[in-house]
Amino acid sequence: MGSLPVELDQCTAAPSLYPNRKPVPPAQRGIAAPCSTEQFKTKSYKHKPLAKRWHPYMSTESANRTGSSLKASMKHLANPNVISLGGGTPLSDFIPFDEVVIRPPSLENLKTDKKRNSTSVTTLHATKHDIADGTSIYDLSVALNYGQGYGSAQFMRWITEHTEIFHDPPYSDWQCSLTIGNTSAFDMCLRMLTEPGDCVLADKYTFSTAIETAQPLGISFVGIDMDREGMLPDSLGEVLENWDPAAHKNARKPSVLYAIPTGQNPTGTTQSLERRKEIYKVAQQHDLIILEDDPYYFLQMDPYTSSSADKSSDAEIRSSADFLKKLIPSYLSLDVDGRVIRMDSFSKVISPGARLGWVTAPAQLIERYKHHTDVSTQSPAGLSQLAVFKLVDEHWGHAGYAEWLMHLRSEYTKRRDVIISACERYLPRKIVSWEPTEAGMFQWLKVDWKQHPDAKTKSADVLEEEIWLESISTGALVGRGSWFRASVDVAHDEVFYRTTFAAAPLPKIEEAVKRFGETIEKVFEIGLVKIEES
Amino acid sequence: MGSLPVELDQCTAAPSLYPNRKPVPPAQRGIAAPCSTEQFKTKSYKHKPLAKRWHPYMSTESANRTGSSLKASMKHLANPNVISLGGGTPLSDFIPFDEVVIRPPSLENLKTDKKRNSTSVTTLHATKHDIADGTSIYDLSVALNYGQGYGSAQFMRWITEHTEIFHDPPYSDWQCSLTIGNTSAFDMCLRMLTEPGDCVLADKYTFSTAIETAQPLGISFVGIDMDREGMLPDSLGEVLENWDPAAHKNARKPSVLYAIPTGQNPTGTTQSLERRKEIYKVAQQHDLIILEDDPYYFLQMDPYTSSSADKSSDAEIRSSADFLKKLIPSYLSLDVDGRVIRMDSFSKVISPGARLGWVTAPAQLIERYKHHTDVSTQSPAGLSQLAVFKLVDEHWGHAGYAEWLMHLRSEYTKRRDVIISACERYLPRKIVSWEPTEAGMFQWLKVDWKQHPDAKTKSADVLEEEIWLESISTGALVGRGSWFRASVDVAHDEVFYRTTFAAAPLPKIEEAVKRFGETIEKVFEIGLVKIEES
Repeated sequence: MGSLPVELDQCTAAPSLYPNRKPVPPAQRGIAAPCSTEQFKTKSYKHKPLAKRWHPYMSTESANRTGSSLKASMKHLANPNVISLGGGTPLSDFIPFDEVVIRPPSLENLKTDKKRNSTSVTTLHATKHDIADGTSIYDLSVALNYGQGYGSAQFMRWITEHTEIFHDPPYSDWQCSLTIGNTSAFDMCLRMLTEPGDCVLADKYTFSTAIETAQPLGISFVGIDMDREGMLPDSLGEVLENWDPAAHKNARKPSVLYAIPTGQNPTGTTQSLERRKEIYKVAQQHDLIILEDDPYYFLQMDPYTSSSADKSSDAEIRSSADFLKKLIPSYLSLDVDGRVIRMDSFSKVISPGARLGWVTAPAQLIERYKHHTDVSTQSPAGLSQLAVFKLVDEHWGHAGYAEWLMHLRSEYTKRRDVIISACERYLPRKIVSWEPTEAGMFQWLKVDWKQHPDAKTKSADVLEEEIWLESISTGALVGRGSWFRASVDVAHDEVFYRTTFAAAPLPKIEEAVKRFGETIEKVFEIGLVKIEES
Repeated sequence: MGSLPVELDQCTAAPSLYPNRKPVPPAQRGIAAPCSTEQFKTKSYKHKPLAKRWHPYMSTESANRTGSSLKASMKHLANPNVISLGGGTPLSDFIPFDEVVIRPPSLENLKTDKKRNSTSVTTLHATKHDIADGTSIYDLSVALNYGQGYGSAQFMRWITEHTEIFHDPPYSDWQCSLTIGNTSAFDMCLRMLTEPGDCVLADKYTFSTAIETAQPLGISFVGIDMDREGMLPDSLGEVLENWDPAAHKNARKPSVLYAIPTGQNPTGTTQSLERRKEIYKVAQQHDLIILEDDPYYFLQMDPYTSSSADKSSDAEIRSSADFLKKLIPSYLSLDVDGRVIRMDSFSKVISPGARLGWVTAPAQLIERYKHHTDVSTQSPAGLSQLAVFKLVDEHWGHAGYAEWLMHLRSEYTKRRDVIISACERYLPRKIVSWEPTEAGMFQWLKVDWKQHPDAKTKSADVLEEEIWLESISTGALVGRGSWFRASVDVAHDEVFYRTTFAAAPLPKIEEAVKRFGETIEKVFEIGLVKIEES
């Protein structure tokens, strides 16, 4: 954590209480009004170094981007005397939503453990004339119309402040752009930084959708060995030092590292600060750009202890200052060179359906990103921006958002404890092994397939599928480890399953683990050969 | 218009009143539940021919797409006995929006010309437990979580029915997928159907963002000559018959035609039914896929007559049956071969900020589209789907939506009449000429730049920019014709400006046209040389 520009506790909902908060100028509150991260930084970054120049890394596609003439012309509407006969933006009158009301849960109720389905008393309103009336700086007349690819100025301010509070990048020309989620952001980053035939470095097991996003573009993942802290810096260095194009269909040496440092998907591993520093050092030696995909950053937990299922394992977190201190610093916060593109998402902490996140990176890369969004996704959905803005800016403030995140941390810790305790109770230890996860949503299970009665006649992959289908028919859906293999061409000799403690109610998690345990016992014929007791 | 499966007037809001409406099965109402267009068609298409096979047209990228393993695995959750330890979908409890209320305007008030800012009485509610309570088939627990790339089953049903009512495709295996708007859909279609170096056929002047979407992918537009009805079929045929790769940087003969048939952007031209049939015939001869970009379809107007500014020009439209009859049939409705990918958008008729639209195409192409969305955009935003679903399905029904569209038609007709009447009043006719538009949002103005005092020493492009900047400084922002040139390498000798009658209030439109007229008079030194009177 860098030195904080403000005390988080001070960033309460009322805008006047944000120390050093910068205003959103009236001309930037309008339809598709351009803005910049720079103007919303609450402190000066001028004494910090500029990011490295990455232009040689740009793909042909990205280098050719000139952006949208129509979006660029919106800047002329900052002058209130200019009448627009320019863009085909419909009048507010022709958008059939007069008012939207949003009811968030009460943080007070969450804290005092009251039933969450008690009637929420807070209502957040938006109409088409709040900006004109001076009751809000963001309303339906703007949110429901066209926007810039990087999102509205109103929301961009909150994003900039949040990034300062939690990551405080150690270089000067960082900027942000809203995204429609990390999957889309990753897709756009690949199109910016790679050409067909390139390789991208990643954990040996990594997010299946990322692999599936890259593969049709002609991009292969190269998996780097992992331990319980995720990617091994030495293995990463070794792969780069000994890069042999011939072994990779003539691919040039990779320049992009894809990392999920916290609560890694699917293995659940979290890189320690020391590990991150070592990997960053290798990235410096080989001049890599790091794509930091970090949707689970705020779902960090205390280590699991066998007794922790019975107690509240995060009892010592009492204040947002405690909470901040417990968070492992991100790659962005270590990024003295400006080589990290950090991808943040609201999917795991607010709503996946919002399709809302943001990237933080050097200005030169954010410019490329914006040029792409303006002619593809156009902008994140207005109702999503409005709903989350109303919640985290006007209602909660950064302090209230931190309270919500602390609540999530506590709830996910409980859920992790429940799944581990169920694993301990229901899974045959001689066949299934695991390391309790310390962040995110996933518990990774290793199955010793060689003990399977058919291990001599069937491959690991065939058995993996058989066990998976059997588990579904017993009523427990898990993820197949093979979906997550980074290097698809390399032979694999291991069987894993990814389980999540996020999706089901607690008693159902226990029941599903029990069913998975029964599946294993049945498939491995434990009742017959008594492997567990042998 | 094909024969209608139902009378539009019968499709009122109460679902029970939709004749032949298909149910959304309970298993398809859940989080990211898969569904299919097929199941929501209200009549059989089996007697109609199958679409042509387009597999040879697929790009390498698209052919390599296998989709998302995680999204595919959601199908196992259709069995309510299966507990998910699969995807990292957060529980509803951890999504901090308990209720959303949406207030639409009253259609009654619109019809009776009451003030639209009178308090709206209708409220549309959504909570997290409407599905469980049986009060709705779609709620926040589903909309705010992950979704399939093609959107929710609930909304897909409405889209399917709408497509039947208005387009009734003449082949059997058509399907739909929701999109996040036509710009993203166009981007995805290009990535599906073209390789870098390819050419795409388009109107001589076409939507600038489409050009800017294609150009970084290495795709060039080839502009086809137009008249007042848009693209000329003979010119299209000629370009294809005489295709010379050498004249196009060795590009192979194009296989994709990009068309904006209604209220073309930027020229405002609308292709007649006859014109559409002729172009479709050329597409058949040369086996083209037609990308039908049709956001202005419902903004069709009656022809302008000089007296129409004083009367209600659509007085004869009294019923939705009249309205339907007046609509020029789409390419989709003529598509006996299944060679059209139709892109519909809610941006111009509901809300641009919703980032919501849909594509209709043969099943084989929709499958490719879905495989792409699942690993990039993931799904349209949930609040957008929910808000528009609540409005057009639960509240308006297809009949109410038609009333809203009739209202828009009438309002845009008034606005078109105002801008034309202002052009007649304020623009020097000997320098500026125009054809009154009959659909959409745009009025295209031609400026005879050769009459400019500096025409001998300055190029058309230089003068175009000078006039544009001068107009902005006079307080009127218009679009530059050069932004919209399809063939960027071809020399241009014309100056056009695109004006819209959509964005400004009526008196401001008149004022802006006046300012633009003053700009022309000033720049062309009309006061000095009296060109107008000469």
